[in-house]
Amino acid sequence: MRKILVIGAGRSASSLIKYLLDKSTSENLLVTIADLSLELAQKKIKNHPNARAIAFDIFNETQRKEEIENSDIVISMLPAHLHIEVAKDCITYKKHMVTASYISPAMQELNAAAQENNLIFMNEIGLDPGIDHMSAMKIIDEIRAQGGKILLFESFCGGLVAPESDTNLWNYKFTWNPRNVVLAGQGGVAKFIQEGTYKYIPYNKLFRRTEFLEVEGYGRFEAYANRDSLKYRSVYGLEDALTVFRGTIRRVGYSRAWDILVQLGMTDDSYTIDDSENMTYREFTNSFLPYHPTDTVEIKLRHAQKIDQDDIIWDKLVEIGLFNGDKKVGLKNATPAQILEKILSESWALEPEDKDMIVMYHKFGYELNGEKKQIDSTMVCIGDDQTYTAMAKTVGLPVAIATLKILNGEIKTPGVQLPMTKEVYNPILKELEEYGVVFKEHEVSYLGYNPNNISS
Amino acid sequence: MRKILVIGAGRSASSLIKYLLDKSTSENLLVTIADLSLELAQKKIKNHPNARAIAFDIFNETQRKEEIENSDIVISMLPAHLHIEVAKDCITYKKHMVTASYISPAMQELNAAAQENNLIFMNEIGLDPGIDHMSAMKIIDEIRAQGGKILLFESFCGGLVAPESDTNLWNYKFTWNPRNVVLAGQGGVAKFIQEGTYKYIPYNKLFRRTEFLEVEGYGRFEAYANRDSLKYRSVYGLEDALTVFRGTIRRVGYSRAWDILVQLGMTDDSYTIDDSENMTYREFTNSFLPYHPTDTVEIKLRHAQKIDQDDIIWDKLVEIGLFNGDKKVGLKNATPAQILEKILSESWALEPEDKDMIVMYHKFGYELNGEKKQIDSTMVCIGDDQTYTAMAKTVGLPVAIATLKILNGEIKTPGVQLPMTKEVYNPILKELEEYGVVFKEHEVSYLGYNPNNISS
Repeated sequence: MRKILVIGAGRSASSLIKYLLDKSTSENLLVTIADLSLELAQKKIKNHPNARAIAFDIFNETQRKEEIENSDIVISMLPAHLHIEVAKDCITYKKHMVTASYISPAMQELNAAAQENNLIFMNEIGLDPGIDHMSAMKIIDEIRAQGGKILLFESFCGGLVAPESDTNLWNYKFTWNPRNVVLAGQGGVAKFIQEGTYKYIPYNKLFRRTEFLEVEGYGRFEAYANRDSLKYRSVYGLEDALTVFRGTIRRVGYSRAWDILVQLGMTDDSYTIDDSENMTYREFTNSFLPYHPTDTVEIKLRHAQKIDQDDIIWDKLVEIGLFNGDKKVGLKNATPAQILEKILSESWALEPEDKDMIVMYHKFGYELNGEKKQIDSTMVCIGDDQTYTAMAKTVGLPVAIATLKILNGEIKTPGVQLPMTKEVYNPILKELEEYGVVFKEHEVSYLGYNPNNISS
Repeated sequence: MRKILVIGAGRSASSLIKYLLDKSTSENLLVTIADLSLELAQKKIKNHPNARAIAFDIFNETQRKEEIENSDIVISMLPAHLHIEVAKDCITYKKHMVTASYISPAMQELNAAAQENNLIFMNEIGLDPGIDHMSAMKIIDEIRAQGGKILLFESFCGGLVAPESDTNLWNYKFTWNPRNVVLAGQGGVAKFIQEGTYKYIPYNKLFRRTEFLEVEGYGRFEAYANRDSLKYRSVYGLEDALTVFRGTIRRVGYSRAWDILVQLGMTDDSYTIDDSENMTYREFTNSFLPYHPTDTVEIKLRHAQKIDQDDIIWDKLVEIGLFNGDKKVGLKNATPAQILEKILSESWALEPEDKDMIVMYHKFGYELNGEKKQIDSTMVCIGDDQTYTAMAKTVGLPVAIATLKILNGEIKTPGVQLPMTKEVYNPILKELEEYGVVFKEHEVSYLGYNPNNISS
């Protein structure tokens, strides 16, 4: 039997583990699920005969080395900063490795050693990064194969709630790490290039410079800019493209309302609020507004943010409970961002029957035989339930498929890898279609942002 | 002769050195001016017979120890983080020390050693910190001596341009470190307490929540909140005050216009702009605005910031050259804040004849015999010229006066000190008046922010 070691049995590992177990008889696999929590690992294997669940501590060197030595390939679903110890052991014991995380500089340094030992260290093969790379490179390569030149590349991804579970005014629920949602956009300025001009969007404007996207059958979405779109120029070989932009997808209207929370200062994670524990939600909101002995928190907020009485934004703010004078924050020495996360977690929690949804949207503008053209490519994936979520499927399935293809010798190129070559993306994208991860491509008329080449 | 060592002969040391040299014959002083630049030190002493200028490197331990050992008292006008080496040597050689900087934790740790050796380490005795402490504590102590209870303390300070030199639309020129002006408000959220309620102003609202101040003979000013007003509660013993607020003074209208630069993202110091060197001022401005093939930078900025065509803010933006398509930034790998500083330095440079102005404003609200009262205290100091600036006078004179009073045994209490006691502030404030640093006190009617004690 071929032995696969999966380290980490968290939420994003469900579909990955199911895939491997479903294939374990036909493919002759023994799958070991290793997690700090033995219970969690056991829950994931459901007594499957070809599986083994173990309690596993990444910092227990003896155990780690032993388990890695006893495997044929290792999948690390750990937080990104923990991969490197696994990777070093994989070099020592000459094992292949797969992760869904960005290649860290430390990981990149192992490239030569991996190549010398004919090992494949496949990374960035989840959703984003992962499916985004593969689905984009496929079309970029196709355009280039025809002799086309890429002028514009825009790529958007979002983790949302499925239409049937979309029951609040924000059209949003927490389907993934809530903290990342609250802190979105705070890591640094959003940089991109548009028609050859570098553009920078500061955090306080980020949620007001959105772009609309239409997805057939799913209606309209909007997207705000990701932090650094510029690095994708070298990754995808788009140094000459006039426009390179990456963004995060939300339902229309989310960003304009979220911006109110940003402007108030509620997403700040850099300081703690005095006596946050005993504060009500209403007092939390009031702490960002000027003092007045009689004016209400409501009128002060409306005035500060210039919100008309019939603006739907107002209902969104009421819906999440910002003016609730009964509920206490109950968190000691909490930052505004932590308090906001707590408040939102009550309104934006998934109900047991709720399903999530992943939406991806690429735009490829190009010139071919003197003509300007554009292909839009979209993918929507809906979760089955709260175990086999769209997120778990889109993150875990490419990892699982890649793992099996490496074991079976279908993916061969050694070294620290990204899924950017035909050898990798073609078979994986093809197999993902069987699991409902399907990209639809449409030729649309090329607009770019300067269709008549007017200089400005 | 009593030997005074002054380390650092920069801009803020001019008035300090002049004071000591003017008193050197009557007080029997030998003043050594030590600076990295011998030329600068020599320029400051102008061949005065009781002075000695030396080239001095704070990191040259031998020289540093020798000069300190040979002095009776040491004044450090170095950047704050460099005081500590001097302070340690002052302990070793049993010398008093004076600085205008905030007490660092490392400095505070020397308190016991200073006390044991009967040494006075006087700190925070410049303008802000310094004159603010002394002038505030004087009135706080007076109110308390009458049996009054402080309800409200607000304190404002600003370094501005004198009315006769006030020649641009911003009513502002760089009279001090331009970088600090560009980065103002970015160190962390502005925190304060108002009528017993904690308030937090995020950076993106800081310049829109100003307060007006009237100064007799000088007209109207405005102030935006400083970072941490709350720490002044323990410093001044105001733990029970309902309102404690500190702010920075500007001329009316400055903040609203500055906010436009903040909102655009031009004050960001956290990343560098691509190819900043070859960019024009206009391109710099455009990099923060959405792309359009034909719309001008002007109309895009007006739209993004909702600036009416007859709004004076517009003229302010034009005046500083934000739309200039000829001038190049000329700075390699510069941050937006560095580029903005460069642009502003051209419009906001002092002319040779220009004078600066320091404005300080305190409000003390208190309850005495069941009655609510308020004292406002204001000070305006105008520079003589560009050597003996208001900044140099207000920073340097308290340092110089304190130094002499320590030498003469008038200030006696040993240890790491602040100028918060009558022993210190009374004689110093009195002598400062001779140099034009005069506080005017007015009884005004107490308003607070909740005059009728309405609960909210």
